[in-house]
Amino acid sequence: MPTYAVIFSSQRTDRETNEYKDAAARMLQLAEAQPGFRHAESARDAQGFGITVSYWESLEAIRAWHQHAEHAEIQRLGRERWYESFNVRVCQVEREYDFSRSG
Amino acid sequence: MPTYAVIFSSQRTDRETNEYKDAAARMLQLAEAQPGFRHAESARDAQGFGITVSYWESLEAIRAWHQHAEHAEIQRLGRERWYESFNVRVCQVEREYDFSRSG
Repeated sequence: MPTYAVIFSSQRTDRETNEYKDAAARMLQLAEAQPGFRHAESARDAQGFGITVSYWESLEAIRAWHQHAEHAEIQRLGRERWYESFNVRVCQVEREYDFSRSG
Repeated sequence: MPTYAVIFSSQRTDRETNEYKDAAARMLQLAEAQPGFRHAESARDAQGFGITVSYWESLEAIRAWHQHAEHAEIQRLGRERWYESFNVRVCQVEREYDFSRSG
């Protein structure tokens, strides 16, 4: 079963930190409830640059999430208020490997 | 021309902050000089969780970078000292879009 990754990298404005954090938490909660969602991970540095990667079972699942009504409204607020810039890349995962310290 | 992304997400140990930062800067410099490298972006949060995404012209370019002698030595140090855990995903970019604030 293929896995798809959505790489979302963004530069925050300095506006509405609390509103933004609430919206980000809500979006993760909504995404987790979407069909075909696998998992997501996110890091943002002290300068407001962040990368979030979410993983999905199919392009259809990504499309449905992109068009989700509440998500669409939050995307609008993001462009209006919360992001200086962002880019989105949709990718097919070809291979992966993991490392975890064993002691 | 296809673009490939290498998503490297990692949890840092709390060891050797300066050595790690020097090595990370050196690796970016080396990667930028590799054939087929396009660009990279990186964010790490205050808890030491980070995501770096590098973009490449081909899987061959990624393979050559993975096997680069100095990079291989740094990968060894990373597993020994600098990372609690990491994972690497190699992906083909299928589509992308950008947003930038216009004033």
